[in-house]
Amino acid sequence: MNNSIKKSEGRLGVLIPGLGAVATTLIAGVEVLKKGLSLPVGSLSQMGTIRLGKRSEKRSPLIKDYVSLAGLDDLVFGGWDVYEDNVYEASVNAGVLAPDLLESIKPALEAIRPMKAVFDQTYVKNLAAANLKKGADKYAFAEALVQDIRDFKSERGCDRLVMIWCGSTEVYTEPADVHATVSAFEKGLRRSDPRISPSMIYAYAALKSGVPFANGAPNLTVDIPAMVEMAEANGLAISGKDLKTGQTMMKTILAPGLKARALGIKGWFSANMLGNRDGLVLSNPENFRTKEVSKLGVLEDILRPKENPALYGNLCHKTHISYYPPHGDNKESWDNIDIFGWLGYPMQIKINFLCRDSILAAPLVLDLILFTDLAQRAGMTGIQEWLSFYYKSPQVPEGRHPVNDIFRQLANLENTLRCMTGEGAVSAPVQAF
Amino acid sequence: MNNSIKKSEGRLGVLIPGLGAVATTLIAGVEVLKKGLSLPVGSLSQMGTIRLGKRSEKRSPLIKDYVSLAGLDDLVFGGWDVYEDNVYEASVNAGVLAPDLLESIKPALEAIRPMKAVFDQTYVKNLAAANLKKGADKYAFAEALVQDIRDFKSERGCDRLVMIWCGSTEVYTEPADVHATVSAFEKGLRRSDPRISPSMIYAYAALKSGVPFANGAPNLTVDIPAMVEMAEANGLAISGKDLKTGQTMMKTILAPGLKARALGIKGWFSANMLGNRDGLVLSNPENFRTKEVSKLGVLEDILRPKENPALYGNLCHKTHISYYPPHGDNKESWDNIDIFGWLGYPMQIKINFLCRDSILAAPLVLDLILFTDLAQRAGMTGIQEWLSFYYKSPQVPEGRHPVNDIFRQLANLENTLRCMTGEGAVSAPVQAF
Amino acid sequence: MNNSIKKSEGRLGVLIPGLGAVATTLIAGVEVLKKGLSLPVGSLSQMGTIRLGKRSEKRSPLIKDYVSLAGLDDLVFGGWDVYEDNVYEASVNAGVLAPDLLESIKPALEAIRPMKAVFDQTYVKNLAAANLKKGADKYAFAEALVQDIRDFKSERGCDRLVMIWCGSTEVYTEPADVHATVSAFEKGLRRSDPRISPSMIYAYAALKSGVPFANGAPNLTVDIPAMVEMAEANGLAISGKDLKTGQTMMKTILAPGLKARALGIKGWFSANMLGNRDGLVLSNPENFRTKEVSKLGVLEDILRPKENPALYGNLCHKTHISYYPPHGDNKESWDNIDIFGWLGYPMQIKINFLCRDSILAAPLVLDLILFTDLAQRAGMTGIQEWLSFYYKSPQVPEGRHPVNDIFRQLANLENTLRCMTGEGAVSAPVQAF
Amino acid sequence: MNNSIKKSEGRLGVLIPGLGAVATTLIAGVEVLKKGLSLPVGSLSQMGTIRLGKRSEKRSPLIKDYVSLAGLDDLVFGGWDVYEDNVYEASVNAGVLAPDLLESIKPALEAIRPMKAVFDQTYVKNLAAANLKKGADKYAFAEALVQDIRDFKSERGCDRLVMIWCGSTEVYTEPADVHATVSAFEKGLRRSDPRISPSMIYAYAALKSGVPFANGAPNLTVDIPAMVEMAEANGLAISGKDLKTGQTMMKTILAPGLKARALGIKGWFSANMLGNRDGLVLSNPENFRTKEVSKLGVLEDILRPKENPALYGNLCHKTHISYYPPHGDNKESWDNIDIFGWLGYPMQIKINFLCRDSILAAPLVLDLILFTDLAQRAGMTGIQEWLSFYYKSPQVPEGRHPVNDIFRQLANLENTLRCMTGEGAVSAPVQAF
Repeated sequence: MNNSIKKSEGRLGVLIPGLGAVATTLIAGVEVLKKGLSLPVGSLSQMGTIRLGKRSEKRSPLIKDYVSLAGLDDLVFGGWDVYEDNVYEASVNAGVLAPDLLESIKPALEAIRPMKAVFDQTYVKNLAAANLKKGADKYAFAEALVQDIRDFKSERGCDRLVMIWCGSTEVYTEPADVHATVSAFEKGLRRSDPRISPSMIYAYAALKSGVPFANGAPNLTVDIPAMVEMAEANGLAISGKDLKTGQTMMKTILAPGLKARALGIKGWFSANMLGNRDGLVLSNPENFRTKEVSKLGVLEDILRPKENPALYGNLCHKTHISYYPPHGDNKESWDNIDIFGWLGYPMQIKINFLCRDSILAAPLVLDLILFTDLAQRAGMTGIQEWLSFYYKSPQVPEGRHPVNDIFRQLANLENTLRCMTGEGAVSAPVQAF
Repeated sequence: MNNSIKKSEGRLGVLIPGLGAVATTLIAGVEVLKKGLSLPVGSLSQMGTIRLGKRSEKRSPLIKDYVSLAGLDDLVFGGWDVYEDNVYEASVNAGVLAPDLLESIKPALEAIRPMKAVFDQTYVKNLAAANLKKGADKYAFAEALVQDIRDFKSERGCDRLVMIWCGSTEVYTEPADVHATVSAFEKGLRRSDPRISPSMIYAYAALKSGVPFANGAPNLTVDIPAMVEMAEANGLAISGKDLKTGQTMMKTILAPGLKARALGIKGWFSANMLGNRDGLVLSNPENFRTKEVSKLGVLEDILRPKENPALYGNLCHKTHISYYPPHGDNKESWDNIDIFGWLGYPMQIKINFLCRDSILAAPLVLDLILFTDLAQRAGMTGIQEWLSFYYKSPQVPEGRHPVNDIFRQLANLENTLRCMTGEGAVSAPVQAF
Repeated sequence: MNNSIKKSEGRLGVLIPGLGAVATTLIAGVEVLKKGLSLPVGSLSQMGTIRLGKRSEKRSPLIKDYVSLAGLDDLVFGGWDVYEDNVYEASVNAGVLAPDLLESIKPALEAIRPMKAVFDQTYVKNLAAANLKKGADKYAFAEALVQDIRDFKSERGCDRLVMIWCGSTEVYTEPADVHATVSAFEKGLRRSDPRISPSMIYAYAALKSGVPFANGAPNLTVDIPAMVEMAEANGLAISGKDLKTGQTMMKTILAPGLKARALGIKGWFSANMLGNRDGLVLSNPENFRTKEVSKLGVLEDILRPKENPALYGNLCHKTHISYYPPHGDNKESWDNIDIFGWLGYPMQIKINFLCRDSILAAPLVLDLILFTDLAQRAGMTGIQEWLSFYYKSPQVPEGRHPVNDIFRQLANLENTLRCMTGEGAVSAPVQAF
Repeated sequence: MNNSIKKSEGRLGVLIPGLGAVATTLIAGVEVLKKGLSLPVGSLSQMGTIRLGKRSEKRSPLIKDYVSLAGLDDLVFGGWDVYEDNVYEASVNAGVLAPDLLESIKPALEAIRPMKAVFDQTYVKNLAAANLKKGADKYAFAEALVQDIRDFKSERGCDRLVMIWCGSTEVYTEPADVHATVSAFEKGLRRSDPRISPSMIYAYAALKSGVPFANGAPNLTVDIPAMVEMAEANGLAISGKDLKTGQTMMKTILAPGLKARALGIKGWFSANMLGNRDGLVLSNPENFRTKEVSKLGVLEDILRPKENPALYGNLCHKTHISYYPPHGDNKESWDNIDIFGWLGYPMQIKINFLCRDSILAAPLVLDLILFTDLAQRAGMTGIQEWLSFYYKSPQVPEGRHPVNDIFRQLANLENTLRCMTGEGAVSAPVQAF
């Protein structure tokens, strides 16, 4: 371990705006794991190995044994929600985990009650919120959140904190002058500028409180210059945006493979069925627009149509999400990919993914918590590009292109871990001749 | 270009045992391409780019501009087949390419008539062969092939030759003492040892004639010690086996992605429908067994169940091929993958690939021809592991494990090309901190 | 043959508003069939048989041999379109039939040039129309169409006429007072009432000219009291609406089967990809609304949720159409059906239908032409319920429920044919005991 | 109710050879239903309605209210199995129903212990049986079963009995002389003729004891002249064979629909994954052969290729079952149907059915029990063709063709019920004109 990285000691507080299906599945899961009853499948930080040295050396330790991560026993959860349900009740309503499993950890979950949320109906049209803060203006809301953070840390005896947004997708917005600098943003807070969304207020409060921030939804949130400025000024790690779970995960696995084989792609049609609260929120076209932009971007970087116009120049990429209550959290995607090969002959690939939204998302949230805390201890500030692996629409410094290819994202993540500890990066071998 | 690689000059003769759907689709396609009427989609050597230096340098030349490959105009095709049809007739029967397209290049295709083939009904049960060599024993067959090769080279004015097996899948066999050394093999030829298959006789004739050999089918062929010994002794490149086209290509794309995310896999069920002559051959259980072994092996290397027993230790992997004439060459695969995530919750992925067997295979054959010739000019002898990218069941030196992950295969291929020209290997970047 | 049915003699003129993909595929197909080059697959009137008497009698003549239908040689096609392309050009643009097939019948298709159309951009947002009639008001448009009909009949020497709407789906509208009576409708025409759509003007012109009318799109058109009144007063057959081709056809096959087995249905999710002009029109939400209403209605009649609340009372039925140009006319549907069985255990059915819009629709249009003409000769006036077999949203007299079960629709159609000829209706046999 | 039908009074004993997944799911389900905790979904006799008179009369009583069926409270279950597990243990092992549901009815299930079975390894290769009868010859086995039946009836106080085969699929056999008459069969029993399978011995014992018999598997069993002779002589109802659950049910729904539309079919490919004990048994090729014959026959009757050679004359029908343990009882089918339409243009339908074997089968077994008992009370003897609705390969009198169209099967079933009560058969209405 590199001497410059502070060891993980003491309790790590995890503050989550949005204690819905994803967050409660994470929290409940950690309780189950602490009892040794199951495995953190899907979490690279817990289950994954990292290869060191040459392949022939056969050194592949578990990542959690290789870098100093906070232990699951050290995590202390808290958060805000627009509903009053405690985490046990919210878990039951989410319908993700089996009732008897939740029953077995009921006391620990009941103990976590959401703090009153900052909410704005214009940003999330389809929810009827109840558990809300009151305040004179958006600046007052920010101050109230700062106070919440301070109280949580002292009351729960945390040594360090991480905040991760697990709330709803907000309506589509574009960066404007109010987001350009910290100063402009703070003026905007005071006059309750309508272009400042709730998630931005949470992010502001975190960064103001010295807490690093990760964004699980496709909202701008920390992907505006004001927040980048603030993160760098305060020496804090930030990352985003939009957890890469089902269909987009598949897309960023498959597209690199088709490109590797120099197969052309004429069209990619993606349909989704989602029946949980997230699906309800996204059934509003303005909220869906935010998600759509996030989902549509991934193929551009991978396929590079400008460099490969004959193969990818005319790609028609469509995506649609339908709110379909019968499936609940068991979201399902269906992709049709129109490819072409030798002499332009057409072929088709159909992918039907019967997945579970929160089951796929929870381990990503866990990894982001642990790796954000690691980055913080390693003194890595600002945008954490190496965590692109976890995001549909990775936040990158202005002027750079995001990497969406999941295999390049993984290599970047692993090489960053190797460098933290002084190991060299690993590349593919070459046949001797 | 590295000085040690001889430039591609003159005509490259391509000798193909098995002028069926795949070979004729390749040959016809090259004729179409020479007229500039279409694109060699699916051929990495023709359509692919290779990144050089750091990503920020934005140097990504086409591979065919980066290394000295034989041009399509320099290719001279010939081959053997158990049917007498010329390549035009065989193309029409294969039903892969559109009749009017074939009509436009008819004279060039008609000019290629198959030489009489070496055939053994015990190795391919379901074909009724007609255009066969006669001979006293298997050694006589080998000598006749050597003579065919010599005649072809001189008559067609070729400077160099490459042979690639595009014939049928032979029945399943395991390496035996007769395959252990060149000496034992030659004795076996003379006594017509039943364990020597036709494809081995072709390979022997090629290597004896100083011609490198690639194996597009899952038969052992050059994957026996005698042939490796012969290739090394004669300074020849060999590689195999079984072109990685449809379902297995998808498998080696998807499995690395699921593993990257630390998702578990409980079962992988693969069904296939195939209606061409290959399907007919594989409807015999003994021939299918050869293909099955080739198809089942790919997950082992990628998932490493011994290192990841909790995720992949109990994987049930099944594969089946049905002969289904209505689809002809338009083979179709259907995969069901039972994965599990956070706390072991099950999810399913279904993949339906409506592909075209020969359309996917032809560009792989082209690349193998060109890269085998390149390796030969670069003085790379013996097993060409860097060409694993093209094979379901890559041949590797004894004691080594094959790489099946298509992305690692591609990295190996590209790094080998880079090293041929003195460029350094490329690895993933690391976030500065 | 019942004496009361006039025999089919002389030429039957077919007037089609909308010479797009469906209409041109029909017209070109009839030309191909007249040459004996192919078969009218999908046409019940041409390929189907009808069982007579008891099963043991084994009497099953072809329908076209059983009732007196106009022959394909007697059909004379004409129509209107908002584009100037003749039928050959429109067929090529539609991309449904193979170019060489169209080439073989080019002169016959080129001879059919569209008359100038009545069009209203507010009813079809996404088309840029060019070949349009001019007129002072909607009444003038109707008069111009009446003149077109008269001219067509005399110039082409037709004995009888049928009109069938194959134009675009118009935006969603509900019946209003202007549609309530012929008198109100005619007043509306004179003041160019915005609630009178172009398809209604065509229908009015047809009925005024003594021409029966069938409606292939989901617009109201003849499904308003004014048109029913006019049809009955003038002794004309009318029917509609919306040709039942791909997904809905499957739905009305499958739903009766699930109900037969007393299996419950919790949800039915239907996605569609369509890349032709129809898809473009439907990508406008107001036009899609018309189609959506038509598509959503079919399950109600079949499943009767009020009578079977435990099985179908909570069914969530969703349908979506995406405009996806890469597929052109090859529309594709994907259905997910969430069923439940014994003790409520859930199961799923997924149906992926790779179909062809116009290939499925053309034979339905042919049957509607021939059966509408038959009904007219048989003196059957007003709404032709027995043709429900062909429609997504069958038009029925006020106060009656449509039948959507395709098997009941077929039985009704066949029994109507049997009764026309004096045969008795057929029912299922009973085991003797 | 027809006076000639005896009312259902007293207890109905249900004897089941094969207390595996299907039988235990039925028995457990009936216990749950008796507690009013769930619904018998999938059971036509319990959930289905029957229309009486004209549609406008709106008379549609529940079937169970319309004819006198045994009530669920009157059923008394017993049976034989090759394993010693009681029904509770067998239910848990089957893994079909949720553990907590089984827990709630544990005592009732534990009370049912299998009698020792008659078993013959040559008929079921892949099972290791343990709980077996011993006997000198097959006749002795038959006598032992007769004694079991007699004891069960008296000990459990049953008024009437029904036997239904829920055991494994036996290896493929064809009728021979030993099956031709009762006399030949009995001689065969005495010499332990190898062509007499265990299921035939059970059927013989039932018919000898005056108990009607239904056959849920594809074995011949009662579909041999000897058993028909015996059933008629003893005035007993028999029926078979092979419960029509997943893929074949779908096939007999869909094929009539495609034929209704005069669409052609070129190929139908059916793959299946099955992971329960039935799948294990069927992984033996000889056992699969029995199932294959049963599955392949259904299209012939529905499509009548001889009458419709242009549409169905060249249909290639393939079916395959793979043993795939990860899915357990959750069998899954995948169908590809190659259809063609107007001018022969090809289209494809893919159906993926994620079903549950025993959940689909259990209500069919219940209906067969109740309807067989009804037939018995109505004096209907011999082969019950009206129960074809429940079978993949319906048993019919020699010289007759089975009906496989599920809608015709349903109509036959309903009309038989109507006739039992003196109601007239129902047919489709005709449009008045």
